[in-house]
Amino acid sequence: MDDFTFLNPTKIEFGTGKEQQIGQHLALHGIRKVLLCYGSERIKRDGLFAVVGKSLAAHDIQFVECGGIVSNPLLAKVREGIVLAREHRVEAILSVGGGSVLDTAKSVAAGALHDGEVWDLFLGKAAIAGALPVFAILTLAATGSEMNSGAVVTNEVTREKFAIQSPYLFPKVSIVDPALMQTVSRDYLVYSAADIIAHAIEGYFTATVQPHFQSRLVEAILNTVIETTQTLLADPNDYAARAQFAWAATQALNGLIYAGTSGFSYPNHMIEHALSALFNVPHGAGLSVVMPAWMKWYHGRNPAQFERMARHVFGVATPLQGIAALETWFDRIGTPTRLSQLGITEADLPATIENVLAHARWFGVADLYTRDVVSQILRNAL
Amino acid sequence: MDDFTFLNPTKIEFGTGKEQQIGQHLALHGIRKVLLCYGSERIKRDGLFAVVGKSLAAHDIQFVECGGIVSNPLLAKVREGIVLAREHRVEAILSVGGGSVLDTAKSVAAGALHDGEVWDLFLGKAAIAGALPVFAILTLAATGSEMNSGAVVTNEVTREKFAIQSPYLFPKVSIVDPALMQTVSRDYLVYSAADIIAHAIEGYFTATVQPHFQSRLVEAILNTVIETTQTLLADPNDYAARAQFAWAATQALNGLIYAGTSGFSYPNHMIEHALSALFNVPHGAGLSVVMPAWMKWYHGRNPAQFERMARHVFGVATPLQGIAALETWFDRIGTPTRLSQLGITEADLPATIENVLAHARWFGVADLYTRDVVSQILRNAL
Repeated sequence: MDDFTFLNPTKIEFGTGKEQQIGQHLALHGIRKVLLCYGSERIKRDGLFAVVGKSLAAHDIQFVECGGIVSNPLLAKVREGIVLAREHRVEAILSVGGGSVLDTAKSVAAGALHDGEVWDLFLGKAAIAGALPVFAILTLAATGSEMNSGAVVTNEVTREKFAIQSPYLFPKVSIVDPALMQTVSRDYLVYSAADIIAHAIEGYFTATVQPHFQSRLVEAILNTVIETTQTLLADPNDYAARAQFAWAATQALNGLIYAGTSGFSYPNHMIEHALSALFNVPHGAGLSVVMPAWMKWYHGRNPAQFERMARHVFGVATPLQGIAALETWFDRIGTPTRLSQLGITEADLPATIENVLAHARWFGVADLYTRDVVSQILRNAL
Repeated sequence: MDDFTFLNPTKIEFGTGKEQQIGQHLALHGIRKVLLCYGSERIKRDGLFAVVGKSLAAHDIQFVECGGIVSNPLLAKVREGIVLAREHRVEAILSVGGGSVLDTAKSVAAGALHDGEVWDLFLGKAAIAGALPVFAILTLAATGSEMNSGAVVTNEVTREKFAIQSPYLFPKVSIVDPALMQTVSRDYLVYSAADIIAHAIEGYFTATVQPHFQSRLVEAILNTVIETTQTLLADPNDYAARAQFAWAATQALNGLIYAGTSGFSYPNHMIEHALSALFNVPHGAGLSVVMPAWMKWYHGRNPAQFERMARHVFGVATPLQGIAALETWFDRIGTPTRLSQLGITEADLPATIENVLAHARWFGVADLYTRDVVSQILRNAL
């Protein structure tokens, strides 16, 4: 087991109706004015916006709106948020939405205090020296952003989907209300399942140091996601399943399963980021295509761990049976497993490969993920 | 799944040699003088005291010693620590030792700022309104105190072993160096295993709301403790096993496995606290006696969960087979499973039952744990 530092100061408020307390949490931190980030206007129709507004008003907290944030959130919107945050001198960023809204909120929080080009923070050309405090009400469980210090944004000009990470970006308080997630569409439910699984398995398979304890925690997450997804597809109103799905999503990327492991990389995310950056496919849908394709190429490098997954998650015996079981399960729940299902054809491969290679350089794994290798993985997904 | 708030602000520094950084961590918190709590003089012989002293000196941090803390730590020593802390106006408490030292340190930290009788904090007659900051270097993995907000102390006069809990008692920084634990005796290794297992199973079996996800996390801990204990009995120098054992111990009582569960109680701890308070048995040794005895009485109230443990931990089919497997495993590793092994005989039962009943009142479960029930459980352990 490798040495590590573990610190996760985010306060999670988990449960039905907890969004009504948002004003109180902000007031406890002395916040008087926030930038309220959100996605579509749906939160105005379904009443959440009103609930939030009422809670803020009850604590005399003003807000400035920054709506219209899309999936695979864009740098342009981050820039817009930074301008608003500065112009209105907000004291915190409040995210009301899923991972895309929250990642935008975090990027604005860091960018607002950065004297220079915000994309430099993503390129590692400048360091994050501070951020406005971030608060979140989560409406979609997938990214784990509610309890971690990272954010991923797409630069729509350069077609790069890169990340920032800084201790300043841990949300102060994240409200996770599974009841708010009951209206998530069937598609986004299964894409979210794929996203959580991807977070859990990246380190599990690629780490050079991967203790059994951490593998068992990963398997607890995988089995929970599989079980609860099936339950939710049959009954979207099953609160207990929705809640476990959400909490498993949080645990999949809050540092717990990675503590003590080392030498890991994020190849599935790396490849998917290229798909999202080029074709704007939903992140989870891209991941469910990439994972089986990547596994078919990679499994020989870590057969023992693939056998673990086969045995402990799918109850089958061999690495290839395990991979097939995962792919079959993705098919069964209705998340894509082929590039063609994302509208990506063989003709798109050359440009896609180039983009993956650019992401491989950013991820620091260009030595392993050469043109040939990337081509082979993508062809596995045709 | 039940509503919950999760917040665990303790920073864990995990790995070999991290104790050398203690001065730096204290300095970062602006600390200039600490009360240094420890147990036996062993830390002076084995060099740890010198390492700590050197690190403190390098950061101009003064210290006042409070040594001689014993297992099942005593209220008298807490009082002594409080006097020292006040007299020398220390700014923080530094624990160098296992759970007993750390629980004493936490109690001193709370008591030093409490204007009145410190035991009132344990009796719930007064609230903890603050505490000196606590820092820890852990030398024995078992209690999980390094990443939680609780502490357990024995009142040697009233023969009560009660707990305090407060957000003020989360250690600011806990250094967990598995290498420091390699000299733990064989006895204390297996007692620690029993203690960790007890932390993991209390909620697992007694919670009225116990989601599958949380059960899987518990099973990850149980399987890891069992595996690594066996490895360490064969080779005490197996660092990877020692490290996983330690990290599993931390996760067993830092709030993770209890988040989202509800309606649970701590009957095994309740009964064991009576044994420790009366007969000063090692906490883990008492727990390995109590657990099988309690399970034999309790399992019919939650057969599904006992079957889970049987299947997922011991690979057997029925609740009774699972309990037998745990008891056999305790026997095999050499931690007691009978009261007689603790020197407690049938003649001691009446006084023991009375003491358990007093603890049952403190734990708020006197309705279920009546004289007859407690007698039955203890007789299962004869």
